[in-house]
Amino acid sequence: MSKPSLGVVAVGNALVDVLTQVDDAFIKEQNEKYGMEPGAMTLIEEVRAVELYAQMPEGIESSGGSAGNTMAGFASFGGKGGFIGKVADDDLGKIFQHDLRSMGIRFDTQPLIMGSKTGRCLILVTPDAQRTMNTFLGASVELTAGDIDKTLISDAQVTYLEGYLFDKENAKNAFIAAAQAAHKAGHRVALTLSDPFCVDRHRSDFLKLVESHVDILFANEEEIKSLFMQDDFEDAKSAISDHVEVAALTRGPKGCVIIGDNEEITVDAAPVDKVIDTTGAGDQFAAGFLYGFTQGRPLEYCAKLGTLAAAEVISHMGPRPQASYSDFLSKAA
Amino acid sequence: MSKPSLGVVAVGNALVDVLTQVDDAFIKEQNEKYGMEPGAMTLIEEVRAVELYAQMPEGIESSGGSAGNTMAGFASFGGKGGFIGKVADDDLGKIFQHDLRSMGIRFDTQPLIMGSKTGRCLILVTPDAQRTMNTFLGASVELTAGDIDKTLISDAQVTYLEGYLFDKENAKNAFIAAAQAAHKAGHRVALTLSDPFCVDRHRSDFLKLVESHVDILFANEEEIKSLFMQDDFEDAKSAISDHVEVAALTRGPKGCVIIGDNEEITVDAAPVDKVIDTTGAGDQFAAGFLYGFTQGRPLEYCAKLGTLAAAEVISHMGPRPQASYSDFLSKAA
Repeated sequence: MSKPSLGVVAVGNALVDVLTQVDDAFIKEQNEKYGMEPGAMTLIEEVRAVELYAQMPEGIESSGGSAGNTMAGFASFGGKGGFIGKVADDDLGKIFQHDLRSMGIRFDTQPLIMGSKTGRCLILVTPDAQRTMNTFLGASVELTAGDIDKTLISDAQVTYLEGYLFDKENAKNAFIAAAQAAHKAGHRVALTLSDPFCVDRHRSDFLKLVESHVDILFANEEEIKSLFMQDDFEDAKSAISDHVEVAALTRGPKGCVIIGDNEEITVDAAPVDKVIDTTGAGDQFAAGFLYGFTQGRPLEYCAKLGTLAAAEVISHMGPRPQASYSDFLSKAA
Repeated sequence: MSKPSLGVVAVGNALVDVLTQVDDAFIKEQNEKYGMEPGAMTLIEEVRAVELYAQMPEGIESSGGSAGNTMAGFASFGGKGGFIGKVADDDLGKIFQHDLRSMGIRFDTQPLIMGSKTGRCLILVTPDAQRTMNTFLGASVELTAGDIDKTLISDAQVTYLEGYLFDKENAKNAFIAAAQAAHKAGHRVALTLSDPFCVDRHRSDFLKLVESHVDILFANEEEIKSLFMQDDFEDAKSAISDHVEVAALTRGPKGCVIIGDNEEITVDAAPVDKVIDTTGAGDQFAAGFLYGFTQGRPLEYCAKLGTLAAAEVISHMGPRPQASYSDFLSKAA
């Protein structure tokens, strides 16, 4: 077995974000009318996406998608990686494709020629810097097991799976195919739970996946509590330790807890002058952690890279780095 | 003559910006190969736009266009306005249209159905926060005199023209039609010179336009020097004072000079913690100035609003407000 040439290959939804600043009343009104989940992600259909967009203030567009954001951060650290996900053959698809490839990420999944447009995530950022997401998945749900490039996966130390993909059956099968290919090559599988409501929707499938296929789990406090249906973080933390090799549990401003082989490490959040937009915080934490991990560094160092990347991304609008993360390598040492 | 219900109607290129951070070496290499003008705007064709984009790092997309940016700022101050410009019937065109309409700007120019795509401006921001622009005008050059909505124009106190439109003959005719409609209604015409190289390309036409049609002129130091072919700012300043009612001359970190009826006012630049991206500085200065002007405020107050808006926009990536400019109204008083 030759040494993998890539650090991470991610499998995720290929989405372009539309980010806009709104007041709390806007979220409240939308929530009352349509059941939008404040601070979380709600899946919407195309008609609703068009309608909501028409009501939203001016936005900025940025390539997004949880796993895509993580790969952007991973590349900013200097990591080599790949991405598997489905765009359509349209303007937004070209933007998504360009952005990943421009940073050296291998991304060769065939775009969808007929059918849905490229998926988009309408993100409403409130004055407290919290983001509420409304996702029209579009072409991204057309990802199937046939799109999983097993050669690419067997060439990566870690295959990183985005929980959000679990929202569609096709994509779920793609997930399992990717995890199996990674393990067949003797490599690791990482999963991010993505969202407490996503966990609610698919709890038993997630539990099965974690037990049978996952080596490294990323989750925030709400997600891990939801997975094990525990009200208390300590109880949820105890529950996960038997199931995976490493669990990286993030707690927002309280930092993170890493549970590894016979050790538990707590790392404080990195300081931020002013939190502008929390979009991408978890994604960039995973980017930093995975970069350290694929470089064979100790878990504490991995966690520190994660907190530094998360601090950068929440200091501006948008889910991807606006500064080079390679500067964090010495800072975390 | 009834009182106009709008403050400003702008006529300009309808463009979506793709903003990206690059190092100086990238600009140098592109300049050597293709004659890109560092710090200025270069017009490019679609083939070159595709090629350059492929070489650019990850970007963020934002509705742009000089006059469109000004209208976004004007609306952020609380102003009512309109926009005339040409997008195509595609994703980027829908983004541009959405963004203006979302802030209450009237924008009803018919999109181009067949032909070019929506224009885009590829903007390279260097570590010194300077932006170098490469514009594929696309559908925006298909604006003709027939697109000038004279009812809209006669309903605005000021018709604001973007110098960049002078780069195409059709659009130049649209310009003249707009200026004539404004004056016929007894209202004012404002012009921004946009770019020293744009002035170079069309000096005699600009001089004729300024003399015959323009009441309020916006220019930065380089542009006004180029218009009168003067090496010295003081000489250029003297030259303009006979031609227009008001000249608002911006000087970057040195602030601005306003030349009005028997008065000359100097206003310092507003302080900025860290300059991130100068894209939109001139556009937002014009937004603030025009807001004050259409409220009948003294020139010094107008200039202060301009400097505050410019300071906000250069403190982040992107050419449009990310904070409400209405907060500046008391600050400038």
